[in-house]
Amino acid sequence: MKTVLSSEKKTVEIGTGSPFVIIGEKINPTGRKKMAAALQAGDFDYIRELALSQAAAGADVLDVNVGVPGLDDVALMGQVVHLLNECVDAPLCLDSPNPKALEAGLQAAPRKPLVNSVTGEKERLEQVLPLVKDRGAAVIGLIMDDGGIPATPESRLAVAEKILERAVQLGIPAGDVVIDPLVMSVGADSQAGIVTLETIRLIREKLGANINLGASNVSHGLPDRPVINMAFLALAIGAGATCAITDPVKMTAIIRASDLLLGRDEYAMRYIKAFRQAQKLQAQSQA
Amino acid sequence: MKTVLSSEKKTVEIGTGSPFVIIGEKINPTGRKKMAAALQAGDFDYIRELALSQAAAGADVLDVNVGVPGLDDVALMGQVVHLLNECVDAPLCLDSPNPKALEAGLQAAPRKPLVNSVTGEKERLEQVLPLVKDRGAAVIGLIMDDGGIPATPESRLAVAEKILERAVQLGIPAGDVVIDPLVMSVGADSQAGIVTLETIRLIREKLGANINLGASNVSHGLPDRPVINMAFLALAIGAGATCAITDPVKMTAIIRASDLLLGRDEYAMRYIKAFRQAQKLQAQSQA
Repeated sequence: MKTVLSSEKKTVEIGTGSPFVIIGEKINPTGRKKMAAALQAGDFDYIRELALSQAAAGADVLDVNVGVPGLDDVALMGQVVHLLNECVDAPLCLDSPNPKALEAGLQAAPRKPLVNSVTGEKERLEQVLPLVKDRGAAVIGLIMDDGGIPATPESRLAVAEKILERAVQLGIPAGDVVIDPLVMSVGADSQAGIVTLETIRLIREKLGANINLGASNVSHGLPDRPVINMAFLALAIGAGATCAITDPVKMTAIIRASDLLLGRDEYAMRYIKAFRQAQKLQAQSQA
Repeated sequence: MKTVLSSEKKTVEIGTGSPFVIIGEKINPTGRKKMAAALQAGDFDYIRELALSQAAAGADVLDVNVGVPGLDDVALMGQVVHLLNECVDAPLCLDSPNPKALEAGLQAAPRKPLVNSVTGEKERLEQVLPLVKDRGAAVIGLIMDDGGIPATPESRLAVAEKILERAVQLGIPAGDVVIDPLVMSVGADSQAGIVTLETIRLIREKLGANINLGASNVSHGLPDRPVINMAFLALAIGAGATCAITDPVKMTAIIRASDLLLGRDEYAMRYIKAFRQAQKLQAQSQA
């Protein structure tokens, strides 16, 4: 299955036949005080810099979350989407729990963005899927529903099936639904990683859907988080994941290496290009 | 299937139910000038240091290769095995293309070492397997035979089956044969990684044998080799590999993270222990 996203200047294809797609996670104030302060102060230069640095480090798509308590997330989403559309080529991933903010983002974003996210919850399905359908966007389906996050790979598959079914009923192409199998921290639950990896395998086998990861959550509360995130990305790509919301500065190298090892990078060209770019960025940051 | 190795002071179990086993690769002069010079000069202090630093960094087993053109590898193997047995607890992996050197190592090593390696080549099977059987050792079976290295996972499986069959005919328990699916550099052949990963999956499924990797070869000729080796180890562990000959200083963190993500490390205890040990070693090296 293929999911195609686009901005005015760039088309990104998500699928097992393509390189793994990197969705830059940093335009999000959750747990990032500097970003929250920038949104509060209307400091768009800071947001522009973050966008440019993520694109330079290998982000194919940029996630956009503007949720800060007390701020008008609907107005901000429209403004930030316009800003990003001017300064980077990457298609956008509109990230909000507020359907009104998603709607504002969908109005402001050109071509075909990704919506982050719908879940299997009744209300969420009813609020978000029509927006996605009307706008011809793609959507991330998070595997949770009114019963919470299912414990086993089989029960997670059932929620993924429900989300896909509802989307297709509404007229959204199945290929435009990217499933996110959810991962909890292995610091809190030693089985959290394997359950998510098995869910990825099951969804690829049974549904063939594209699979996204919120990859940084897996290491919450543990030391040396990047090494856990790297291992998780490699394992998840091996199991069939096709895109991730992650930090391109730290994770592009392991992702390009995984693609290479899985036979998806002829002559190692993308791997070597990413290595040279990382060297260039490092030299610039030290200059 | 379980493979149990032992020295006088330590028992190491290889198997999917156990943590991934790290075989330290550094006591090997191939491509390491300092190590070759130490063997030439009889500088056993250098070898002792290498052994201790690998054990401290997380090596469960130590590979021992003393092959330098012009030196008496039979005598050296015996001497170095005695030395290692005095300074570290880890069981040994005796590594030589020369059956006489393997024999000397087997005589010197206590309890149950690992022999690296037999292949599917007729002469090699005839020379090495009887030594393994007589000594009650375990052995690594490299997937190559008189026709070279087979190109496809299916043909590699056939060579693995041949090695296992011959070993069992001689009275070596099937669990004492660890299969090495061989990996060539992805710098030379973009399909080299995926062929090896598919071979691992096939061998686990069809034979259930333990699987070893000579993990560093995969990145030969490419820049930023450690990141490729890390991605390969995570992918291979996910596919079913159970031990690797690798650099514990650089690779222990990604291996312990992979075990944790695969649900083999309750309360992340081994991961955290390895992290603390790495911090301690780093502090010592900077002191």
